[in-house]
Amino acid sequence: MATITGATRVFGILADPIAHVRTPALFNALLEEAGVDGVMVPIHVASNELASLWQGLRAMKSLGGLVVTVPHKSAILDLCDEVGDAARAIGAANVVRRTDDGHMICDMYDGKGFLEGMRAQGRDPAGRSVLLVGAGGAASAIAFALAEAGVESLTIANRTEAKAADLVARLSRHYPDGRFAVGQAVAGGHDIVVNGTALGLRPDDPLPIDLEGAGSDTIVADIIMKPEVTPLLAAARDAGLTTHGGIHMLRAQLRLLAEFVGALPRE
Amino acid sequence: MATITGATRVFGILADPIAHVRTPALFNALLEEAGVDGVMVPIHVASNELASLWQGLRAMKSLGGLVVTVPHKSAILDLCDEVGDAARAIGAANVVRRTDDGHMICDMYDGKGFLEGMRAQGRDPAGRSVLLVGAGGAASAIAFALAEAGVESLTIANRTEAKAADLVARLSRHYPDGRFAVGQAVAGGHDIVVNGTALGLRPDDPLPIDLEGAGSDTIVADIIMKPEVTPLLAAARDAGLTTHGGIHMLRAQLRLLAEFVGALPRE
Repeated sequence: MATITGATRVFGILADPIAHVRTPALFNALLEEAGVDGVMVPIHVASNELASLWQGLRAMKSLGGLVVTVPHKSAILDLCDEVGDAARAIGAANVVRRTDDGHMICDMYDGKGFLEGMRAQGRDPAGRSVLLVGAGGAASAIAFALAEAGVESLTIANRTEAKAADLVARLSRHYPDGRFAVGQAVAGGHDIVVNGTALGLRPDDPLPIDLEGAGSDTIVADIIMKPEVTPLLAAARDAGLTTHGGIHMLRAQLRLLAEFVGALPRE
Repeated sequence: MATITGATRVFGILADPIAHVRTPALFNALLEEAGVDGVMVPIHVASNELASLWQGLRAMKSLGGLVVTVPHKSAILDLCDEVGDAARAIGAANVVRRTDDGHMICDMYDGKGFLEGMRAQGRDPAGRSVLLVGAGGAASAIAFALAEAGVESLTIANRTEAKAADLVARLSRHYPDGRFAVGQAVAGGHDIVVNGTALGLRPDDPLPIDLEGAGSDTIVADIIMKPEVTPLLAAARDAGLTTHGGIHMLRAQLRLLAEFVGALPRE
């Protein structure tokens, strides 16, 4: 990294826990490559202190913006002065730009990032049957991006089924011609299965998806980046299935986020 | 600099304006040299938003602490949960440690930094007659540190004599056995003379101290760092006297600040 001076623009990543996040290293490498005098640092904050933190971030003139991850993606909507269309539809945001006068403007790029990451690996979900597990911020974003991409069908499975039903209802409102359903977290019958939950971050987490019945050409995707090979991906690999790690989503998304916060010029 | 990860400890420097500050580059070099996973970034905040910022910094769990400079050195005293003895006596602080539960503890190291810088060069002021020119924040901090170090006598000279008298009164309250006096900015009769003002920053500034009558073993010290050789130090060198530049104070203080905020283990 280049030397940090008093003129360096600061960016933050908001998370809790935070030790595992990989965005700062990748984001900073992107800025250095572009010759930008900016740096991203971890901002660890608990949910019950997010509003207090927010007041401070508004007052921090050297702050350019934030990348936001679990568990703050939904909570920041109410704290922002402007909310982008994608974030509004999904009910969550993962990036915030701070204007010079302290206004906070957010939007959601998780879905675009996941989709671009799939496409970059030659795994276009258009016309495929997809199972998505989870109905939180990231999962919702991915669901909307998959709907936009024209999947053949999208099944949502979630521990709290009402949340899955709510997501299906929102998807149906935005994409009246789409095929959306609430279902079980079982791979059988789907071309692509996606873990959109945090299960797998901790070593003793249960597998988020039952791989029972998965066809040999099933793609098993995870949004978790650390460990790089989650227990789900390890199990999929053992079963001879194609795996798609969280890093693809992050890499595809990084430039979009850097542009949104003003760290890089828009391409 | 080393790669910043989610586990990297963050430190800030608070200032307004901030573009000129040199501390982040030097502090980060110190941490890198010590192999510490930490980074200092500029936190630019206006005085009227300092209290809002403070609430945010309390909530930021990845924040280890702050170095504080103009114009916030006095204002932070009221915002901290604990104020060190030196800061309390001087009425200003330049460093804040954030405990894991968000408590903010400040202290003042400008004086200790000056003292350690002298000692590191084998110039212990204990038992010596010292002339200090200036009565502002930095000069006050140095005065208290010199009193604590056990100087034989300390003479304060200041353009506005009432401020010198006030500093002498505060010193006398804290060190009833010390010998403190208001005097003239003339070197004669002193073992060590110190410029604690900003005179010398600009090329056309008058010399802060008249070197008339200085004995050949007089030490002439300056707190100004840029230029490295101030007109005062150049004059002292021409007169064959020992000179002591401002960089010694900064270097000695950096380590103390890094220790105070927990970035380096205490030596």
